[in-house]
Amino acid sequence: MKSSSAQKPETKNWISPLRNLLGGKNVLCALEDRLCYAYDGSKQKYLPDVVVRPQTTKHVSDAVRLANEHEIPVYPRGAGSGLTGGAVPVFGGMVLDFTQMNRILEIRPEDLVATVEPGVVTQTLQSEVARYKLFYPPDPASAAFSTIGGNAAECAGGITGLKYGVTRDYILALEVVLADGSIITTGRKTLKSVTGYDLTRLLVGSEGTLGIFTKITVKLIPLPEKIETLLVFFPTPEDAVASANGIISHNILPRALEFIDKSSIDCIKGYRQEIDLPKEANAILLIDIDGEEKSVQKGISFVEMFVSENNAIKVISARDTKRRDALWEVRRILSPALYKIAPFKINEDICVPRSQILEMLHTISKINTRYPGLKAVNFGHIGDGNIHVNVMYEKEEDRSFAEKMVDDIIYSAIRLGGTISGEHGIGNVKSKFLPFEIAPQELQIMKDIKHLFDPKGILNPGKFF
Amino acid sequence: MKSSSAQKPETKNWISPLRNLLGGKNVLCALEDRLCYAYDGSKQKYLPDVVVRPQTTKHVSDAVRLANEHEIPVYPRGAGSGLTGGAVPVFGGMVLDFTQMNRILEIRPEDLVATVEPGVVTQTLQSEVARYKLFYPPDPASAAFSTIGGNAAECAGGITGLKYGVTRDYILALEVVLADGSIITTGRKTLKSVTGYDLTRLLVGSEGTLGIFTKITVKLIPLPEKIETLLVFFPTPEDAVASANGIISHNILPRALEFIDKSSIDCIKGYRQEIDLPKEANAILLIDIDGEEKSVQKGISFVEMFVSENNAIKVISARDTKRRDALWEVRRILSPALYKIAPFKINEDICVPRSQILEMLHTISKINTRYPGLKAVNFGHIGDGNIHVNVMYEKEEDRSFAEKMVDDIIYSAIRLGGTISGEHGIGNVKSKFLPFEIAPQELQIMKDIKHLFDPKGILNPGKFF
Repeated sequence: MKSSSAQKPETKNWISPLRNLLGGKNVLCALEDRLCYAYDGSKQKYLPDVVVRPQTTKHVSDAVRLANEHEIPVYPRGAGSGLTGGAVPVFGGMVLDFTQMNRILEIRPEDLVATVEPGVVTQTLQSEVARYKLFYPPDPASAAFSTIGGNAAECAGGITGLKYGVTRDYILALEVVLADGSIITTGRKTLKSVTGYDLTRLLVGSEGTLGIFTKITVKLIPLPEKIETLLVFFPTPEDAVASANGIISHNILPRALEFIDKSSIDCIKGYRQEIDLPKEANAILLIDIDGEEKSVQKGISFVEMFVSENNAIKVISARDTKRRDALWEVRRILSPALYKIAPFKINEDICVPRSQILEMLHTISKINTRYPGLKAVNFGHIGDGNIHVNVMYEKEEDRSFAEKMVDDIIYSAIRLGGTISGEHGIGNVKSKFLPFEIAPQELQIMKDIKHLFDPKGILNPGKFF
Repeated sequence: MKSSSAQKPETKNWISPLRNLLGGKNVLCALEDRLCYAYDGSKQKYLPDVVVRPQTTKHVSDAVRLANEHEIPVYPRGAGSGLTGGAVPVFGGMVLDFTQMNRILEIRPEDLVATVEPGVVTQTLQSEVARYKLFYPPDPASAAFSTIGGNAAECAGGITGLKYGVTRDYILALEVVLADGSIITTGRKTLKSVTGYDLTRLLVGSEGTLGIFTKITVKLIPLPEKIETLLVFFPTPEDAVASANGIISHNILPRALEFIDKSSIDCIKGYRQEIDLPKEANAILLIDIDGEEKSVQKGISFVEMFVSENNAIKVISARDTKRRDALWEVRRILSPALYKIAPFKINEDICVPRSQILEMLHTISKINTRYPGLKAVNFGHIGDGNIHVNVMYEKEEDRSFAEKMVDDIIYSAIRLGGTISGEHGIGNVKSKFLPFEIAPQELQIMKDIKHLFDPKGILNPGKFF
């Protein structure tokens, strides 16, 4: 494990004032505490010097002001579920753990907004607003444990992106602690506002490098009356992709439209789940249709007919929550099931125009032949063109070989008009690819904006650039 | 009319190189040409020194580079339909007229995107994508003549905002000419991308003060199968507002939910239109429901029943385009009909949380009693909380009295948690109000961003700040 300094954190001259400002119980220096905050979903490990657990905006402001004075790196952290290292303290310093700031401050059904602290778990917000028949649509796979603060920092996507958009489309206003510890608000708690530059959307997706969110106002929409699910097996990926395209071109935007490839199916086989997978299935679509009840029925009937015309081998439908959950289990177990193939993986998050999906899948397959011993497993949000490519490898020492394969895949995605990250963010894991997608002048503007917000570079340093 | 200098434009030392770069026919110096570009929808008049009509991105780049070298103000202009002075050349200089760059460059139905030049008229794009059964939702009242470039610069809203969001929600990528004439691209032509800071959304709504758009990639969605319309008359605004709130709280998001107050109804009476307005009507809701056919029918039936329970006097429904147009005529003629009350008006664009709409309407009414001789007429997108308040006055010399009344209304909107502009932008017309809504530090960040993008201040100077 890497650490910023050998010096014992307790001896640092800024620890004592930090304790005075926030109270001792909110400032953790013990190695066992710090170890818990050394990692995130990217499986990197960097030990922070101190873990700060703010309870209030003032705590955040005080801690950041002190960090700025002493030029201490500050690493905001929600659930630490990010996959690109957004929360890992690569230069040590201070981790700001937001799990204590987890209150839903208000839900205003009439105004279709809610204001929350950053540590609120995404699914908790979804459940709470559902009591008012309201819906917060962004739905990353991590929704059961990831936080709204982390979602907003990364501009999280998820399975509902095609129909409902991503996190940025639902953030109306922010309270933000800037690098000098000052507190600003951006945006407005109204459904519309065009007053001044859109700092809110500049900050959403900036991965904690421009400011630290302490309050987040989100837009809500009416909860769809009904959701139904179809699990469809195809003999070829071409049939699955043609079906996905055809459904959308017949004016149906599914709530979810997930693609699972042959390698993924092989992983699931025999893994704990109830669904009987046809032997000849080489691709799966998992489709949720939501909306007003009659309209859902019509959509489901059309899709059942359409996929049958497009060579579907088998279609399983589910109308109630329990049956739906069983079908979704196939998708949910994918990540753990992958380890059947190999104990190590690098998971990527490319997104291409949907018309390029097949070309992208073929390209990945071709690239794979140049990397014997490695295996690409692909699944993802095909409606958005967002494929999660998992490069599986056997031994830790194969890592750099696997990374070379990932490089090839990422360059191909960019060549096809795609992006290196649909929804996982950049963090430190993908920062080396940024210059391949973003031209030097645009990158320089981003760096200038970073410098403007954070002249000393204390906010999540080592990320993005 | 104000002008920046008495010097004849032809004698300026940058005119000849400008002609060399762009060709004589694209550089207009004659007074009669310049007069046509001196105004916009805000009815201000400022004479530019020259009108440049670029045909290509290179033209824009060449013109802006030259302007930057000579420190000439540059005023990008679409249709000039903006209501807050976004396109008026307040310091003379160069107007960039984008009406020649009006090509739809590509529509990619499979990818749900289209790329256009900025001069494409909004309704033209809507009609062209409708041929593929696709929908570009942002629908400002000016859609028949305003341009996508202007819409993107102002982050235009319109009647579909509640259900479909505003322009920013549909802009995926931009080609932008910066203040030094260099050309960058931002965003990605994919439905998702989180690579780097979101410069695209920072630029959308920046009113031409940070960069000039030369290509715009928009997101499209499937065209709703069906639209039906209801025109509902109520005895009181309270009944109308309660109905609007009730419809949404019963999980129906109308495509349009327009409110028209008593003063507006008085204006329409006797004005050319076919609808028979009940004498006792003191408020109107104009409601569009769209979507899959059966779901629209169910929604319409519910709304008909619900408004009746909420004291509606009369409900007129329309299922086909022609009948729908007749109902919408009531809303469309409002602006011209207003002049029945008084020959002059200031139209505002406040937006408040929907729960504050009635309070806002009452406050406007109370304010009005302090301004004898003036008359506030209110209509707008009640679903968004976005009310267009028109302060009508008799004589040109009453202008400053009317402006005082507008000040009071705007301060009240801010007090109620609202914003000074829901969708019209700031321009020079509302810049004096910016500091009332935006705190000094946030405003300073915006100014710093402006300076970063445009150090010499040549891009749309005199706007925003």
